Amino acid sequence: MNTDIPYKTYLSENELPKAWFNLKPLMPVKPAPLLNPETRQPVTMQELSRIFCEELARQEFDETNEYIPIPQPVYDVYKMFRPSPLVRAYFLEQALGTPAHIYYKFEGNNTSGSHKLNSAVPQAFYAKQQGLTGVTTETGAGQWGTAMAMACAFFKLDCKVFMVKCSYEQKPHRRDVMRTYGASVTPSPSTETAVGRRILEENPGTAGSLGCAISEAVEAAVNTPGYRYVLGSVLSLVMLHQSVIGLETKAALEKLGESPDVIIGCAGGGSNLGGLSGPFVGDVLRGKLKCRFLAVEPVGCPSLTRGKYAYDYCDTGKVCPLAKMYTLGAGYMPAPIHAGGLRYHGMNSMLSQLHEDGILEAIAAPQTKVFEAARTFARTEGILPAPESGHAIYGAIQEALRCKAEGRQENIVFGLSGTGYFDMVSYQRFNDGVMQDFTPADEDIAKSLSKLPRV
Amino acid sequence: MNTDIPYKTYLSENELPKAWFNLKPLMPVKPAPLLNPETRQPVTMQELSRIFCEELARQEFDETNEYIPIPQPVYDVYKMFRPSPLVRAYFLEQALGTPAHIYYKFEGNNTSGSHKLNSAVPQAFYAKQQGLTGVTTETGAGQWGTAMAMACAFFKLDCKVFMVKCSYEQKPHRRDVMRTYGASVTPSPSTETAVGRRILEENPGTAGSLGCAISEAVEAAVNTPGYRYVLGSVLSLVMLHQSVIGLETKAALEKLGESPDVIIGCAGGGSNLGGLSGPFVGDVLRGKLKCRFLAVEPVGCPSLTRGKYAYDYCDTGKVCPLAKMYTLGAGYMPAPIHAGGLRYHGMNSMLSQLHEDGILEAIAAPQTKVFEAARTFARTEGILPAPESGHAIYGAIQEALRCKAEGRQENIVFGLSGTGYFDMVSYQRFNDGVMQDFTPADEDIAKSLSKLPRV
Repeated sequence: MNTDIPYKTYLSENELPKAWFNLKPLMPVKPAPLLNPETRQPVTMQELSRIFCEELARQEFDETNEYIPIPQPVYDVYKMFRPSPLVRAYFLEQALGTPAHIYYKFEGNNTSGSHKLNSAVPQAFYAKQQGLTGVTTETGAGQWGTAMAMACAFFKLDCKVFMVKCSYEQKPHRRDVMRTYGASVTPSPSTETAVGRRILEENPGTAGSLGCAISEAVEAAVNTPGYRYVLGSVLSLVMLHQSVIGLETKAALEKLGESPDVIIGCAGGGSNLGGLSGPFVGDVLRGKLKCRFLAVEPVGCPSLTRGKYAYDYCDTGKVCPLAKMYTLGAGYMPAPIHAGGLRYHGMNSMLSQLHEDGILEAIAAPQTKVFEAARTFARTEGILPAPESGHAIYGAIQEALRCKAEGRQENIVFGLSGTGYFDMVSYQRFNDGVMQDFTPADEDIAKSLSKLPRV
Repeated sequence: MNTDIPYKTYLSENELPKAWFNLKPLMPVKPAPLLNPETRQPVTMQELSRIFCEELARQEFDETNEYIPIPQPVYDVYKMFRPSPLVRAYFLEQALGTPAHIYYKFEGNNTSGSHKLNSAVPQAFYAKQQGLTGVTTETGAGQWGTAMAMACAFFKLDCKVFMVKCSYEQKPHRRDVMRTYGASVTPSPSTETAVGRRILEENPGTAGSLGCAISEAVEAAVNTPGYRYVLGSVLSLVMLHQSVIGLETKAALEKLGESPDVIIGCAGGGSNLGGLSGPFVGDVLRGKLKCRFLAVEPVGCPSLTRGKYAYDYCDTGKVCPLAKMYTLGAGYMPAPIHAGGLRYHGMNSMLSQLHEDGILEAIAAPQTKVFEAARTFARTEGILPAPESGHAIYGAIQEALRCKAEGRQENIVFGLSGTGYFDMVSYQRFNDGVMQDFTPADEDIAKSLSKLPRV
């Protein structure tokens, strides 16, 4: 094996990005503004600050500053788990027999198990800086809740996590990771909030949903003095923090003298794909780079490939602002696929606009093929991927096989956003050969889209 | 925070050790030879090769070569997960208010979750090189089985794992990691082997034990053409492979211009502690370094602190060679502590000799204190440690507090051998406040030691 390029490229600590990258100033068409769900007017800074920390609300609105400095305490904590490695997938290339060079940026080497910690740390820091005593949030699969529990432990903040009830019961291990970091974890819907009590009355046996947990977390934050709510995806501010992924990848590739031909990420709310691709999209928009961008979403929850670009609620409880995005409708119930992190009806508004503008391509992958790709990756590259990340691997393998068929040596870069160590129930179903694919019916999607709010 | 030394030091790939370090040639008193369990005579190369791969048996006997080259294919796979970082625990130091500098070598950033992969890879490679088609092994907590499953996937070997039945049932997730890598996993005792059938007849409801699983794995290897048995701890050959931990640590400390005052590791069979400390012990024996070495074992299984230095069986089934070591007796049933990897009655014979010679100190830690240390570490340094590694953290914190009391700035280096992501049932018991300590009674240990074989 000719390995003139290292297997793993780590930046040194003084090469870490000192500022986050904000793509908005460079976008030819800016994403449409968030709307107040009651007035249908653009949300004001003041309104947003009742729910979110002030500095985070400010970042959400920022369309002018291309770089936003990373505060020193955040930078110090980043050094605990960053830089993450950019890995040349020599063994995967060999197994596929492709002339392509495959690189992946691995964000799973921290206890949260994913890239989520990149945004949890600044969100906890800004809460602390504002003098708050705690934050509330929701978690479904558990990565975001774990990341917030860790970040709050670092900055000595209370952390209250509403965990979707079926996850709470199915994943007691995730719950105890959060508890070990000092977070309190409440199964949602709960009797602790008005919205929770209402839902429990209407559906006594409900297993809960992310939309309900968001509504409970927002209510708890608004009603608890010294608290605010934090959110781990979808928002522009999250994509801003996640730009460290792309900035590090860019610096590492430059060190290697390599340039990407296609950048691939899984897409749920969009924070991982947006974070990896953002700085490269910036270069494309500046005319400095020619590169394709590919979102891989699940066939079971196909917002980019089968949704509509329209204003919609970000949560099913309809307490959060409206965003213009590719959506399946806030009331859409995604198929019970195993990549819980991708079971979201909408998509980050910047990525939605980039898709609308033809800059971001999208494909949908069936989950059994995703798990096949994940297994191939585990057996060749060693790392057992999260089902979410398996979508990016699926996309990378498709591209690598295309390169093989065309005899082209392209540079494929994908985001390995996390590990699958808490997803073994899903792997077990796959190993047992009982995993199913789910393709939504056209009429179900159409029905959901017919209920989009009129703006 | 003054952080003139980086948080994490990674060697570059061309700085990776090219050879393993063998401490035996430097030892003033060599460890006593392994004995054939039937003849009580030193085991011959020929006898050992019936169970183990030839090259591995050769390494087990090697008392002359101080360095043994790492074969290129092993080196290539090492690059998949090595170098591991040497981390300066700034946040832990700050929390303890100690003048000591605390460093830890983190071996958990691979899917096996521990240092075990360092020996699994060469063991699979030598099996393949010898033309074998498969290997058998046993696993209790699951780390070694996972590491072997991964290594066999890389070298395309069959892998048959006998997993202690109670672990098989309590840890279905571990089992499915191994299956995802293509290994077959059999709960032990099973009806597949004579020894398994005998044990099942005698104790129909038995939950199994490591000793039984070893006996089944050895029988299956000896009776399957093209198979050999592999073992993940206790043996000198394992300590040899694990020397990459110490060699990397030494190179990283030299880069930083730092020298260790005390090196700490948890001790079960001894492979992790031996691997980390071996090259430094070598420097001490050569008169080039002044440094203490500290083994931290569980109060519930105290082979170094309360055992006897004598010949004993390595397995309860008494099919493996006898080794001279610190032991609690092969029939000793360790307390049901949560650090499954440390529930072994004996200790590597080299470490045993070093303890006998006063070079290696040892302390025993109660498990509730270990989990407290592990939680402190998680909340300050971010990584959720394995319960086994928690023992090393406990030792490091004790030493750091001693430095604080004495006002001394010493360099403390400990091995963070693995992560606790598959140990959440244990953390849950700790979080719920229902974890107990177990201190063995003197008479139980004396009774077990009275049954040591006469040699």
